[in-house]
Amino acid sequence: MKSLSEKVLSGEARSVARAITLIENGGSGAAELMREVYPKTGNATVIGITGPPGAGKSSLVDKLALFYKDLGEKVGIVCIDPSSPFSGGAILGDRIRMATLGLDKNVFIRSMATRGNLGGLSRATVDAVAILDAAGYHKVIVETVGVGQDEVEIVKTADVSVVVLVPGMGDDIQAIKAGIMEIGDVFVINKADREGVLRTQKELEALLNLAHRPDMWNPPIVKTIATESKGVEDLSTAIVSYLDFQKTSEGTGERRRSIARWRLTELLQERLLADLLGRNGTREKLDELAAEIAEKKIDPYSAVEEILQKPAH
Amino acid sequence: MKSLSEKVLSGEARSVARAITLIENGGSGAAELMREVYPKTGNATVIGITGPPGAGKSSLVDKLALFYKDLGEKVGIVCIDPSSPFSGGAILGDRIRMATLGLDKNVFIRSMATRGNLGGLSRATVDAVAILDAAGYHKVIVETVGVGQDEVEIVKTADVSVVVLVPGMGDDIQAIKAGIMEIGDVFVINKADREGVLRTQKELEALLNLAHRPDMWNPPIVKTIATESKGVEDLSTAIVSYLDFQKTSEGTGERRRSIARWRLTELLQERLLADLLGRNGTREKLDELAAEIAEKKIDPYSAVEEILQKPAH
Repeated sequence: MKSLSEKVLSGEARSVARAITLIENGGSGAAELMREVYPKTGNATVIGITGPPGAGKSSLVDKLALFYKDLGEKVGIVCIDPSSPFSGGAILGDRIRMATLGLDKNVFIRSMATRGNLGGLSRATVDAVAILDAAGYHKVIVETVGVGQDEVEIVKTADVSVVVLVPGMGDDIQAIKAGIMEIGDVFVINKADREGVLRTQKELEALLNLAHRPDMWNPPIVKTIATESKGVEDLSTAIVSYLDFQKTSEGTGERRRSIARWRLTELLQERLLADLLGRNGTREKLDELAAEIAEKKIDPYSAVEEILQKPAH
Repeated sequence: MKSLSEKVLSGEARSVARAITLIENGGSGAAELMREVYPKTGNATVIGITGPPGAGKSSLVDKLALFYKDLGEKVGIVCIDPSSPFSGGAILGDRIRMATLGLDKNVFIRSMATRGNLGGLSRATVDAVAILDAAGYHKVIVETVGVGQDEVEIVKTADVSVVVLVPGMGDDIQAIKAGIMEIGDVFVINKADREGVLRTQKELEALLNLAHRPDMWNPPIVKTIATESKGVEDLSTAIVSYLDFQKTSEGTGERRRSIARWRLTELLQERLLADLLGRNGTREKLDELAAEIAEKKIDPYSAVEEILQKPAH
């Protein structure tokens, strides 16, 4: 019988789905699976797409996926969802998306959500991308629903990061723009039939002129109307232009090392905590101390000392 | 000479600022400071404010702070900023905010941003809140710029969580609404002079009716126009109504323990990694392995094994 990793490598969509569930739950088989799958990665183009809510990212991602599909490529979409960390559970309706994209074996879509306190969303997302890559998907699109620290980190691990903005979103957009400025390799002004496109473009150009990228890349600005499929081909061209530039850029190796370091650190933290909690009595001790912190009988820092000083038994 | 923690406890704004910098940088004095400060916490009302960009959160926070200040209270504001994890650095112009709020010794404002790969933003933010609490600030407002996993986690540690929405933000708002639905104790529809308020209110009510909170609280919906200071008093009343409810609710203890557990886990992870990296040669080993991962000579899971199997020397 074929192993799960063999089935993944042969591109079976159902096995890909099962593999992602496995790595989401972080079971014992997850590390083994990833070890087997990892050497086969590196062929997909990973496209990260982020931007504020209301920018129409989902529509744009769907249209970009359709564009690639029509070229005969296999496309995987991974959505990151900022749902509550205390209950977990995916929110976005994959099935609604599937209706738009069609039940096509060449398009795979999956939402990732956080699972309880141990976090691991970043690690699980990056692993899911690796699984799709190894399974032969030509393009893997990582789409964030939120715009937070984790989401920015994840999008930075893509080969190319696309930041989607929209005209006239008020004052907060300035802060967001500045925050995500640095991660955009390509910028999109979506809903480009709306009022204020030119102003948004001018503001964006001014911000880009202020920023100095170490690799000297000058991020292109693409205007799209995703709902009418306008500008999607321009976006694909802009993505290719960055990927071509990247091949010749000296910064690429540094970027890859920086991503690998981040990924390794995430994995290490998760593993160190799991090892600690796996020791007899530690999990109970943690619950006890959490109750004491809640009642202000002890401060969290002293509680950490107490857990670490406790000998394994 | 007075120690830093003594100065913090006496409410000196400059010492509060220094203390927050210390815990942000995570230096050796940070744990000691927090141990001394922690027993004096628990008096402030901590208000978490989140919502999508463009909802006018900053204006609302400023007006709410002014409202409390005019009642003679001391107000601390902590902003969480989703800037790039690979370079770090705060984005929001605190100085611009200060101009609105006035250079008042009763209002303290501080942006928190991520510092490099080790993360710790959540921990640092929660610690900053504790410092302001111990320093005698009556209200501490935690405002997120992004809406991501970390931001949601942090807002959940507040005594009351306020979710700010705005009429007519397109399709994505549905996803966000669902994602932050569960964390809102109070909902605000800001920019309530805009078109589509009634529709947004109806949608929100429908979503709230679907949700079943374990504590049976029915979150109020407040309409505001922050730029004109309208509805700010209503918001303060809604906040008080939830806090009153909380005092009688059985769920409060469980919530506090859940928060304490999350906080303890965050701190443990940070500490375990720091301990590991502090061992001779481990940091160099990590860099070496990151380079090998980048070149696909090794997979991240095997790299973790290699680091953990390496004896300390």
